[in-house]
Amino acid sequence: MKYCSDCGARLSYRIPKNDDRPRFICDRCGVIHYKNPNMVVGSIPIWQESILLCRRAIEPRYGKWTLPAGFLENGETVEAGAKRETLEEAGASIVELKPYALYNLAFINQVYIMFRAKLPEPLFNAGHESLEVRLFKRHEVPWNELAFSAIHKTLQDYFDDLEKGIFSFHMDDIVQKWDY
Amino acid sequence: MKYCSDCGARLSYRIPKNDDRPRFICDRCGVIHYKNPNMVVGSIPIWQESILLCRRAIEPRYGKWTLPAGFLENGETVEAGAKRETLEEAGASIVELKPYALYNLAFINQVYIMFRAKLPEPLFNAGHESLEVRLFKRHEVPWNELAFSAIHKTLQDYFDDLEKGIFSFHMDDIVQKWDY
Repeated sequence: MKYCSDCGARLSYRIPKNDDRPRFICDRCGVIHYKNPNMVVGSIPIWQESILLCRRAIEPRYGKWTLPAGFLENGETVEAGAKRETLEEAGASIVELKPYALYNLAFINQVYIMFRAKLPEPLFNAGHESLEVRLFKRHEVPWNELAFSAIHKTLQDYFDDLEKGIFSFHMDDIVQKWDY
Repeated sequence: MKYCSDCGARLSYRIPKNDDRPRFICDRCGVIHYKNPNMVVGSIPIWQESILLCRRAIEPRYGKWTLPAGFLENGETVEAGAKRETLEEAGASIVELKPYALYNLAFINQVYIMFRAKLPEPLFNAGHESLEVRLFKRHEVPWNELAFSAIHKTLQDYFDDLEKGIFSFHMDDIVQKWDY
């Protein structure tokens, strides 16, 4: 961030009055440009004993498997975002969404919010961001071919809970950058 | 958003290739500038039957009461953000944080994430963003003098759960703009 998006002037990087950390400040128009974490919203689409994964047709992690998930958009609730991503990436309409997990990825300024959800029918197809979409039971999951650590964590937590038969809301920190 | 923060050129506002909604695009350097929702993180600091509220010393809603809460910073987990805001605004160190609620305020592109938390001692003081900080039982809460609808909702849900003795994770949409 070098230029003011409001007036086009060069930005300074310093601590504003009454603040405790440096920000990008426009000395011409006075605007402070904050940078804040982004939310990634997604789902675990469930059909009987299986969950739905997508193989990525885009970078990063082209060819690797993921749950449908993506950045929350302005004007959208986290639930609406998870439904939209699932429709876009997996061609699937999910129902009965239940908040399942919040994972902090502070090292990349992201917060994942994941839902459990039902597939009313085993209907899905690869959107333009996916090479293929398939249902997997736990022992079929391509654990070494997953795209992101947050997806790995979601699937581990989910299948652990499935075996126990108890689904609680998870909140955890992911600190390892194994996926980039 | 008028100018590219990377190169200073004038921005266009149009739908990028392979996208479905308009974005701010720099035709000179090619960067797409996404705008995404922000997270507000905060806590319900609990001491015995009471919770801690702060009276705001800043705009918006100067003079109104709120739970300690503020924007999540880059590099921070939601739990760390809630602790920091509670220390900054209420001079209080909270412990035993439990995820309590997620509220969507899609009309202002915000997601609130609130924790229940214990005050180990009734120790607190007004930070520079607060005029005063005080403990309130349910019947003492200044319901008509609260700063934000998300805080009103948090307090209602909390005291309802307290009466029932059951605390579940809440996820709800707040659609009314009563507080601005």
